[in-house]
Amino acid sequence: MEDNYKQKIIQGREIMKASDFDVESDEAKGVPQPSLSNEKSTDNIIKLSKEFEDVLTDNNFLTILNNRNSKRKYAEDALTLTELSFLLWATQGVKRVIGNNRKATLRTVPSAGARHPFETYLFVNNVEGLKQGMYHYLALTHELELIREDADQENKVTKAFLGQSFAGGAPVSFVWSVVPYRSEWRYSVDAQKYALLDAGHICQNLYLAGEAIGCGVCAIGAYDQQLTDSLIGLSNAYSSEEDSEFTVYAAAVGKKVTEN
Amino acid sequence: MEDNYKQKIIQGREIMKASDFDVESDEAKGVPQPSLSNEKSTDNIIKLSKEFEDVLTDNNFLTILNNRNSKRKYAEDALTLTELSFLLWATQGVKRVIGNNRKATLRTVPSAGARHPFETYLFVNNVEGLKQGMYHYLALTHELELIREDADQENKVTKAFLGQSFAGGAPVSFVWSVVPYRSEWRYSVDAQKYALLDAGHICQNLYLAGEAIGCGVCAIGAYDQQLTDSLIGLSNAYSSEEDSEFTVYAAAVGKKVTEN
Repeated sequence: MEDNYKQKIIQGREIMKASDFDVESDEAKGVPQPSLSNEKSTDNIIKLSKEFEDVLTDNNFLTILNNRNSKRKYAEDALTLTELSFLLWATQGVKRVIGNNRKATLRTVPSAGARHPFETYLFVNNVEGLKQGMYHYLALTHELELIREDADQENKVTKAFLGQSFAGGAPVSFVWSVVPYRSEWRYSVDAQKYALLDAGHICQNLYLAGEAIGCGVCAIGAYDQQLTDSLIGLSNAYSSEEDSEFTVYAAAVGKKVTEN
Repeated sequence: MEDNYKQKIIQGREIMKASDFDVESDEAKGVPQPSLSNEKSTDNIIKLSKEFEDVLTDNNFLTILNNRNSKRKYAEDALTLTELSFLLWATQGVKRVIGNNRKATLRTVPSAGARHPFETYLFVNNVEGLKQGMYHYLALTHELELIREDADQENKVTKAFLGQSFAGGAPVSFVWSVVPYRSEWRYSVDAQKYALLDAGHICQNLYLAGEAIGCGVCAIGAYDQQLTDSLIGLSNAYSSEEDSEFTVYAAAVGKKVTEN
């Protein structure tokens, strides 16, 4: 057990380093590129806004930067759909699709080689106009799709987040999954490190965008992999092939409680 | 080779997942906590500013968010020391030290358990008042220390960044190292994933803070591990013990070129 532990530490540290493993990527081999993002899977589509001026209660970058901290207590208030639109835009919004044979998305966050190997899922408890349930962000069209109505998800989400009830009960919790092959296609054994760095970029924008609309945010790194994947409906987490997709990071969001 | 490749992919994907490896952390065992950040190693100390209002050319968060992209071309102009102070503050600035027996820093970015297992090094080519050379950020006192004057570093830095000359020649390049044990002390085999996520948070703030002062930024995930570590003077990169420290991420920064 002690040896096994040490080996895992060493493996983890190795993946934090730049790889010198010389391998021809699938891209270099001429393998066609994987899709830029997952297709919609339902017809329950909710259009999102790109007009954010009215929901920004604090648009001063320096104040936002200095005020940001992790907040685990949220007010009872609902988020509006425009506020949620802003958070989705800030974290994964697609500004432009570029390229012909090799397409890529340019987003509000960077990603190594513009691979953007992520999907965004939401556990919505309290957003105006949205039923309680689990949603999927369609980044290319800036829409949400309702995957599953669920008026009883709070306890399940709390359990998936290892008992962190602030997250299970938050007005909305973001879950980011990674589709590793979207980046491995180009970066092979470097892709996994890059994707974790990329995911951090996304969550930082969520923190700052949250501040801008009077919301508190708390990143969630500790979760039960199988329970969370299962709640989202990801059944290929343990595949070693191109179809693998699994939860990589999460965050809870809600309106700030009034300062005492 | 094909098997070895597949194994590396699988290991990388595993580290992107939440670990269910149940191990008692050093913290739980009562091992004293490691230091919050590296000590200064020279007496060549440069005080930094915390007065940023005068250097912010765009403080509109929404504009900053939407304008951010990766910029690899920089103007000839120098950054001022206050501008550089702002970038250091935005990425690793310490707002508060909390705790008694177990201390932690609260910074402008979050970190899992407020472990903040990073150090910031700078390759400075063109910053007003600073000699060309390599510097280390003293986050706890918001100061820089000059580690090594080097009027001839551009080619060496370019080589360490695998020929990316925009980075070697940039007015300033940031290099973040990780000291894994600072986080492993609490999170053991989860620490490596958390640190990569954390590093992404840092670099996103650099992008946004850069926009706010008219600078372009480009994240650098591809670098030569040994050359970069060696340039910074990190000799314990491959230690599997507490003293290990190595480069984990980097970014180049410079004033934007005038739009044509």
